[in-house]
Amino acid sequence: MENFELFGNIEQGKNFLESTKTGKFLFSFVISYTETCEIPGITFAGADKDSIQFTPPADAEYLHYGYCKTIDKIPMTPDGKPTPGLLTKAALESASIPHLTINAGSKVSPQLPFIDTGMTFGKNISTQDAMTDSQVSHAVDYGRIVGRSMASLTDCLVIGESIPGGTTTALAVLKALGFDAKVSSSIPNNPIELKNQIVSSALGRIDSEHPYSIVAKVGDPMIPFVAGMLSSASNVSKVMLAGGTQMAAVLAFASKIGFNEENSAIGTTSYITNDDTANFTHLITEIADIPAISVNPGLETSQYSGLKAFSEGFAKEGVGAGGSIISSMIKTGNNSVKFLEIAEKEYHRLFTSL
Amino acid sequence: MENFELFGNIEQGKNFLESTKTGKFLFSFVISYTETCEIPGITFAGADKDSIQFTPPADAEYLHYGYCKTIDKIPMTPDGKPTPGLLTKAALESASIPHLTINAGSKVSPQLPFIDTGMTFGKNISTQDAMTDSQVSHAVDYGRIVGRSMASLTDCLVIGESIPGGTTTALAVLKALGFDAKVSSSIPNNPIELKNQIVSSALGRIDSEHPYSIVAKVGDPMIPFVAGMLSSASNVSKVMLAGGTQMAAVLAFASKIGFNEENSAIGTTSYITNDDTANFTHLITEIADIPAISVNPGLETSQYSGLKAFSEGFAKEGVGAGGSIISSMIKTGNNSVKFLEIAEKEYHRLFTSL
Repeated sequence: MENFELFGNIEQGKNFLESTKTGKFLFSFVISYTETCEIPGITFAGADKDSIQFTPPADAEYLHYGYCKTIDKIPMTPDGKPTPGLLTKAALESASIPHLTINAGSKVSPQLPFIDTGMTFGKNISTQDAMTDSQVSHAVDYGRIVGRSMASLTDCLVIGESIPGGTTTALAVLKALGFDAKVSSSIPNNPIELKNQIVSSALGRIDSEHPYSIVAKVGDPMIPFVAGMLSSASNVSKVMLAGGTQMAAVLAFASKIGFNEENSAIGTTSYITNDDTANFTHLITEIADIPAISVNPGLETSQYSGLKAFSEGFAKEGVGAGGSIISSMIKTGNNSVKFLEIAEKEYHRLFTSL
Repeated sequence: MENFELFGNIEQGKNFLESTKTGKFLFSFVISYTETCEIPGITFAGADKDSIQFTPPADAEYLHYGYCKTIDKIPMTPDGKPTPGLLTKAALESASIPHLTINAGSKVSPQLPFIDTGMTFGKNISTQDAMTDSQVSHAVDYGRIVGRSMASLTDCLVIGESIPGGTTTALAVLKALGFDAKVSSSIPNNPIELKNQIVSSALGRIDSEHPYSIVAKVGDPMIPFVAGMLSSASNVSKVMLAGGTQMAAVLAFASKIGFNEENSAIGTTSYITNDDTANFTHLITEIADIPAISVNPGLETSQYSGLKAFSEGFAKEGVGAGGSIISSMIKTGNNSVKFLEIAEKEYHRLFTSL
């Protein structure tokens, strides 16, 4: 247990770690899209503006094949820092944890078998509603179906996401639901000013307290879908939301539609829980009585600057990296030193073979 | 064991039944389409010609929701006999066996979350090639990915299908691969003459012994996809192909691309294994050294003519009914008498609520 730091409901966090030790994990990777990411300066999830839409499917392909089909290289920041999916892949593979990709509104379909939900991407919340109320209902309903199916096939369902620009929609949803959120970002000098501007203009459109209406106006398709998954899955198996701010927004919406807190946890990296510009652990305790499990991936001592960068605030989280590392450590008993070795091996493979 | 009759590799059949008794089952439902079904008189899988294309997605919806979304009623023959999916649903539900829908070339997508494979439907083999060689490769590759994923989540992967007109393409593939097949049909007076005509004209186009080329010319998308699933899944878990003639064609193609016979079985109804116009059990022993497990669903004593009809040769098999009943009996210990009770309850629910 010394690998993890617990926040929120600590007792339940200990139980969560204990009860999943001998069980099976299944990682579900939810890809989505919000046009909010097209606002200049809002995200670094892609080498340039036009390639951002390919990041979610490319992350899915990389997790599955070890390389991408939709783009030539793996997703990177403009200055060549790799996707946090690298950490996810290293974690899942080292622990033989199976994964499935779910398309919940990605603009581009991944080139692999995936679970289709019939959902479309969200609109730019700075200028218009993200979705209609009925699209939110559809997302919740389909999320419930998928969550129930997945949970019946495992002991612990881990849910990760890839939705560029998603921290901004998450911030809007959290604020609209009454939480004093400050969000993390894939960019070290978090463009807080810009995000707050977008969020303010989005919040101005809210005219109803109904959570479906709020998510429709200022959210993104991932939030109601994953909340639906959590809602049904947590009645069947343990569920770990793998992520930072975006999963906090999922949790906030899920607390409105109902879920089983006893089976639920949020798992993330210490880069999120230690981020002074955000207030992640406090936020989680405000939202729900569940544990937040934090892992230090140990990348600060890496010989590779591309890995070290994660510990310095670039893409602190994403593609369910934190939750995947936690799951792999629970299953294998590995610690951060061992994980760093595994991640460096994957980094080396990628950057000598590409 | 007294519920089942074994053919083929009987020793392995006993092992299969024994080893799956305490394990988990997962039913995967593969829906597909071949334009061959549009030839008048070839199938009864739909109330009329225009509705045949809706039968696979409607079967998937019925299995999941208990009613259909794509069409008003559940799939039926022109004279109102219900889909064999009724037996599948009764079986899976009574044993709490989870299921997933896979779209492997259905003309119409089901209105539920499903696994998408990027495949398109097959062409009418009486007039043109069903697919290109590269479409067959894609089907096998994606089948392998899906098979590996599904098998890693269960102890026994059961694979059923819905592809109207599929017995004709199956017949063509079996003959082209050198097996003396006579096929069953959803129609009691099996239109053998018509099928043989279609098959002959299809076989005339074959110009290569390569199995991919053969399936491309005279097969359908379901065959290479499910063969790919079997190929990878049988290295991870037990696999039961749930079906009659169509699964024989899958087996024939799979024996060319390789699969693990020790973990594989075919499961079907006694309506198939007792069908004198076909030669199912003999065919299986010719193709592979695996067991065929046959179950008598006991419908001949039903109070409902719609259920009795299955025992009289209407839609003897389909939607993985036989394999689902076998799986449910293995898991619950139910016999045919108990299963009839369950099926009648579902029949009653359907025909009083619709």
